[in-house]
Amino acid sequence: MISSWPEIAIECLRAVRREHPLVHNITNLVVMNSSANILLALGASPVMAHAQAEVEEMAAAAGALVLNIGTLDRSWIAAMILAGEAANRAGRPVVLDPVGAGATKLRTAEALNILRRVRVTLIRGNPSEINALVDPAGKTRGVESSRGPDGVREAARALSEKTGSVVGVSGERDLIVRGEKSIRVANGSPLMTRVTGTGCGLSAAAGAFLAVRKDPLEAAGAAFACYGLAGEKAAASSVGPGSFEPAFLDALYLLSEDEIRAGVRIESEP
Amino acid sequence: MISSWPEIAIECLRAVRREHPLVHNITNLVVMNSSANILLALGASPVMAHAQAEVEEMAAAAGALVLNIGTLDRSWIAAMILAGEAANRAGRPVVLDPVGAGATKLRTAEALNILRRVRVTLIRGNPSEINALVDPAGKTRGVESSRGPDGVREAARALSEKTGSVVGVSGERDLIVRGEKSIRVANGSPLMTRVTGTGCGLSAAAGAFLAVRKDPLEAAGAAFACYGLAGEKAAASSVGPGSFEPAFLDALYLLSEDEIRAGVRIESEP
Amino acid sequence: MISSWPEIAIECLRAVRREHPLVHNITNLVVMNSSANILLALGASPVMAHAQAEVEEMAAAAGALVLNIGTLDRSWIAAMILAGEAANRAGRPVVLDPVGAGATKLRTAEALNILRRVRVTLIRGNPSEINALVDPAGKTRGVESSRGPDGVREAARALSEKTGSVVGVSGERDLIVRGEKSIRVANGSPLMTRVTGTGCGLSAAAGAFLAVRKDPLEAAGAAFACYGLAGEKAAASSVGPGSFEPAFLDALYLLSEDEIRAGVRIESEP
Repeated sequence: MISSWPEIAIECLRAVRREHPLVHNITNLVVMNSSANILLALGASPVMAHAQAEVEEMAAAAGALVLNIGTLDRSWIAAMILAGEAANRAGRPVVLDPVGAGATKLRTAEALNILRRVRVTLIRGNPSEINALVDPAGKTRGVESSRGPDGVREAARALSEKTGSVVGVSGERDLIVRGEKSIRVANGSPLMTRVTGTGCGLSAAAGAFLAVRKDPLEAAGAAFACYGLAGEKAAASSVGPGSFEPAFLDALYLLSEDEIRAGVRIESEP
Repeated sequence: MISSWPEIAIECLRAVRREHPLVHNITNLVVMNSSANILLALGASPVMAHAQAEVEEMAAAAGALVLNIGTLDRSWIAAMILAGEAANRAGRPVVLDPVGAGATKLRTAEALNILRRVRVTLIRGNPSEINALVDPAGKTRGVESSRGPDGVREAARALSEKTGSVVGVSGERDLIVRGEKSIRVANGSPLMTRVTGTGCGLSAAAGAFLAVRKDPLEAAGAAFACYGLAGEKAAASSVGPGSFEPAFLDALYLLSEDEIRAGVRIESEP
Repeated sequence: MISSWPEIAIECLRAVRREHPLVHNITNLVVMNSSANILLALGASPVMAHAQAEVEEMAAAAGALVLNIGTLDRSWIAAMILAGEAANRAGRPVVLDPVGAGATKLRTAEALNILRRVRVTLIRGNPSEINALVDPAGKTRGVESSRGPDGVREAARALSEKTGSVVGVSGERDLIVRGEKSIRVANGSPLMTRVTGTGCGLSAAAGAFLAVRKDPLEAAGAAFACYGLAGEKAAASSVGPGSFEPAFLDALYLLSEDEIRAGVRIESEP
C-alpha cells in the first residue's frame, strides 16, 4: 500500500526538521533574505554562495541546489552552471526557478541554457514561465492564461518529457507533472501573490524536501502542500501583505502533523 | 475646474490597483525586497532586472522605470543608462533616486551622469542629495540643513529648471517642485526615518503613480501624500520600527478613498 | 574603580542614540536590509557601499567599518581590503565577520587574506568559523562542537594573539577574548538562530558600539549583551521566527537603561 499524501508530507517535514539539510541557493537579489528565512523556519540550513571559485565545493556539500534566475547576469549564470554540474556529479537534487522566462529574451535563453547543461530535478514556475520554456519563440509571451489550464498542462507535460524533470506550475491550483503522471495541489492563499518572493521561497522549500525524500514527485507535492497550508494559516490571521509575511514564517515553523493531516489537498489527475 | 488633491490621489491609486502597472527597478541591494513589497501592496507589478543584456527590453515593456544609485557600481550604472535611454525612446516615465549624492564623489558624479544621458521625469531625494546635484563642488556636502528650507527650495527649483524634471525633496514637510510651481506635502511620520528603504520605496511608488497619470507633478504629489498617509496610519499602530514595517505594507494595501479624502495634506506654495 | 558592565552598556547605547555614528557595511546580499534596520533601530546611521571607486572615501568618513564575507566574490573582497586599509589609515575600528570560513576554501582563504592586510578590531563568528581561521587545514571543518567550549576558547585566544583583534564567538553563551582576558555573555535566545542575519546583525551592531567606545572589549561586551537582551525580550513576545523579527527591532529601539541594569549577564572568565 502506498502512503497517503498527508503521510508523505508529514514524513518530509519531520525529516527536514530532524536533519536540517543544507540547501545551497544561487538566487535573485530580491528574495535572498526571505528564502533564507523560509528555509530556516522549515528547519533547513540555507546557504547563499555565487562566487565561481566556491560554488562547486558548496553545491557538492549541500543536500540540494536551488537555481533562480530572477536577477540574473552573465557571471551568475556561469556560477549556476558550474554549481549545477557539481550537484549532478555529486548526485544532489537541483531545482530551477526560471523567474521571468518569457519576459525577456535573455531569461528564456539562459533558463534553456541551464536545462541543456544541468540535469534538473524540479522546474518550478508560473504558467507563462513554463510556457516560455516550451515555446521560446514567444507566441505565449507574458500571456499567463492564454492557453487556459489545459494549455499549461500540455506545456508542463512536454517540458517534463523533454527534460526528465518534475515540473511544478504555481497557480490557483498548483499543477505538478512527471511525464504522464500529474497531481493538483489546492492549498494556498491569494494573499501570497501580494508578497514578493513567495514563489521563489517555494522553490527553495522544495529544495529542502528533495534533500530528504528520494521520489521527486512526492517531495514536490509535499513541499507545495505544506507551503500552501502555511499560507492559508497565515492569511487567516493577517489583514494584508505586511502582517502576512511574519505570520507565514511562524506558520511554517509551527505547522503541526495534525494540521497537515486535516489540511493537505492533493489530487491525482486522470 | 481642476481636481482637488484628494481626488487626484484617489484616481491615481484606483488606476494602480486596476491596471497593475509593471515598474522596472534598477535599485540598490538593500531595498530590493522592501521596494518590491511596497509596489505589490499598492497594486503595482514590480520587476528587478539589471543585466545590460536585458534592461532595454524590460524598460520598454514596463510602465515606468526607477533608477536608484544606492549601492552603485560601474556595471550597474551602465545598465541604468541603457535602461533610461530605452525608457526615453519608448516614452516611459523615469524616476531617479540619487541615494548618497554628496556623500562620495562617485555618487554625485554618476547621478549627474545619468541626468546628462537620460531625461528624468522625477528626481526624488533628501535635501543634501538635491543640494549636491546643484552644487557638486560639495560646499553643502552632508549638511542637510545648512541652507534651511528656503535653500532647499532654491536648489530644487534650480535642479528642476536645469533638467526639466519634477524634483521631490523628502523632509518633515516634503517639497515638490516643477519649474516655478511648488507644493508641500505634510503627510508622513518620523518613524519612517528609522526603517531602511522608506525613501527608496517612495521613489518606487512614485514610479507606479507616474505610470498611470500623465501629469508628473500630480502623480508625484499623489504618491507622496498616499505614502505619507499610510506611514501615519502605520505609526499609529506601531511601537517601534519593527512593528512599523508590516503595518506600513498593510496600510498601503488597505488605504481607502475615505482615508485619502480625510487625510491628504498638500498645499501649493505661493 | 572600573565601571560595571551594565553601566558600560548603558553608556555605549546612550552614545549611539545621541551621536548616530555612521557605520559603513560591506556585507553579504542576504542581510543588507536586516543589518541596516538593526543599526537604525539602535540609533546608528548605516551605509552600504561596495564600489572600489568609493569605499575608501566612505570608510574614512564613517565611524566604523564592518566587513562580512557572507556572499563574497572577487571584486567585493578587493573592495573590502581597500576599505579596510582606508579605515586603518583614518584610525577607524574595523569588524570582520568571516561568514562561512571553513565551509569553502575560498572563504577561509579570503578571511585570512583580509586579516593579513587589514588591522581588524573585532572578529565575530561562530565556533566553526573561528576554528577555521586558526586551523585552516580544516581538520575541524564544519564541526562546530568538535573541540567543545574549551577548544573554542583556545582557538579564540590564539586568533586574538596572532591578530591583535578582540575575538567574539557566538554560541549558547557568547565568548569574547582579548589576548589573555576573556568574558562570557549569557544573554540571547535560541530563536535568534532561526532568523537569518542575526549573527551578521550583531557584527554590525558591534561596529556602532566600537564607533562610540574606545575600549574594544568593552564595546564588544556591551554590544553582545544589549543585542542578546533585546533578543530575549523579543522571544518572550513571539510565537516563531516570523513574529520574532519585528519584535526584535522594536526591542532594540525601545531597550531601556533599567532593562539593561536588570538584564545584562556578563562574567569575566578566570
